[in-house]
Amino acid sequence: MRTLKLTIAYDGTNYVGWQRQTNGVSVQEVVEAAFVPLLPRAAGWRSGRSGNASPGGGRGPTVAGAGRTDAGAHALGQVASVNLDTDLTAPAIHRALNVRLPPDIRVVGLADAPPGFHARFHAGSKTYRYRIATTPVLSPFDRWYVWHAPEVRDVAAMRAAAAVLVGTHDFASFQAAGSPVRATVRTVHRLDIVADAAGVVLEVDGDGFLRHMVRAMAGTLADVAAGTRAPDSMRAILSARDRAAAGPTAPASGLTLVAVRYPAVC
Amino acid sequence: MRTLKLTIAYDGTNYVGWQRQTNGVSVQEVVEAAFVPLLPRAAGWRSGRSGNASPGGGRGPTVAGAGRTDAGAHALGQVASVNLDTDLTAPAIHRALNVRLPPDIRVVGLADAPPGFHARFHAGSKTYRYRIATTPVLSPFDRWYVWHAPEVRDVAAMRAAAAVLVGTHDFASFQAAGSPVRATVRTVHRLDIVADAAGVVLEVDGDGFLRHMVRAMAGTLADVAAGTRAPDSMRAILSARDRAAAGPTAPASGLTLVAVRYPAVC
Repeated sequence: MRTLKLTIAYDGTNYVGWQRQTNGVSVQEVVEAAFVPLLPRAAGWRSGRSGNASPGGGRGPTVAGAGRTDAGAHALGQVASVNLDTDLTAPAIHRALNVRLPPDIRVVGLADAPPGFHARFHAGSKTYRYRIATTPVLSPFDRWYVWHAPEVRDVAAMRAAAAVLVGTHDFASFQAAGSPVRATVRTVHRLDIVADAAGVVLEVDGDGFLRHMVRAMAGTLADVAAGTRAPDSMRAILSARDRAAAGPTAPASGLTLVAVRYPAVC
Repeated sequence: MRTLKLTIAYDGTNYVGWQRQTNGVSVQEVVEAAFVPLLPRAAGWRSGRSGNASPGGGRGPTVAGAGRTDAGAHALGQVASVNLDTDLTAPAIHRALNVRLPPDIRVVGLADAPPGFHARFHAGSKTYRYRIATTPVLSPFDRWYVWHAPEVRDVAAMRAAAAVLVGTHDFASFQAAGSPVRATVRTVHRLDIVADAAGVVLEVDGDGFLRHMVRAMAGTLADVAAGTRAPDSMRAILSARDRAAAGPTAPASGLTLVAVRYPAVC
């Protein structure tokens, strides 16, 4: 049994997110289905599988993603791991997957990984990007890939507020309301803001993120940039440990998982 | 009666092109429909119009575009003209149109123009961009906006071939087969090629373009960059005045109408 490490880019517009859900098509299930033709042909017969609606027959192996991504959010470098019993070379598997996958999901890298490698459990840090378009009229080409918020103007104030979030903090105020996760301390290594005439890009790197954390940070920093929240309110928001203390959750369309890093051994 | 000049950006993926067609939805008809609520309310009654399927009632005024664009091709700066009887300010008309238009069509500029201004008849020159992605795996975010042609490698050869096309020539070999247009001499002012690791962008500026001319130029230049056609074959292709002498018509998805220029008086 081999363990493979996949790097996957996807336009998440038409998906319920990475993870399997009952309410729609997930990126995970589409990637898993793409493995079906690569499985040993006898496996399906031996285990007596039948009645599967997919023309390839059978269900693919479990593909574990480094991070869930929200419905409508995107990825340039999602990482996933899968265990597979095959003699095919890594490049052959890579090509076969992309032939089978729809054009809004692409495997951009595939390699053998050390046995036992798990994309989620071994992830060291992740980088997310959040794009805000600030032009009065939103470009038709950006409509699925940004949050259109022309009221975002004061980038200097936004940067001052963002600086408060860097470091190790309890981010409970930035976690989706109702989330069952109780260990809410995370470390943000970097929160950079790049602005031009088209808008603002936030890039945040951290050792882990709570549910909706990046989107809540973007929504709160947008309040600051719009002048409806003071930059120095960020400390009080963190201390409150209450979702209601922070700003709105910015739309998923602006969010992209850019990269996942692993310790050198992976 | 006022004459308005509109600058329009659109993602052409879901349209049959700018111009009204019987086989699908055109950008033109969607823009015209957006004007319906701005028309004097009495007009529909006086002319006794009825039975129109659009909820706003009535058909909009004719909006003349500077250039047809092909089904699936895009625009950053299509220009259109329309005659309208209204007291609304230009900014108010601009806002009202964008409220009514779908997000894949945006009016990015709107101003009063001299009476009689016509976007097509008065157009001085146009700039088109053609994007070719050359990475082995196509980015999911580019899938509707490029031609994926990894075989395009020799950019220097492509530039040498492109230089032959600049100037005033008979471009009959680059006109869609079966086109009824007999006056096939056009002037290409500029044909620039910018390349990076992601691909090649052609930008061509000319006083007018035959049907499919930019796409046939892109397809022929791609042959040169792929090594299947010599750069110095371009003169013979022009002389042949025969569509079969040139290369394939590159897909519409890679094509964008970037800008239309007018004499200073417009």
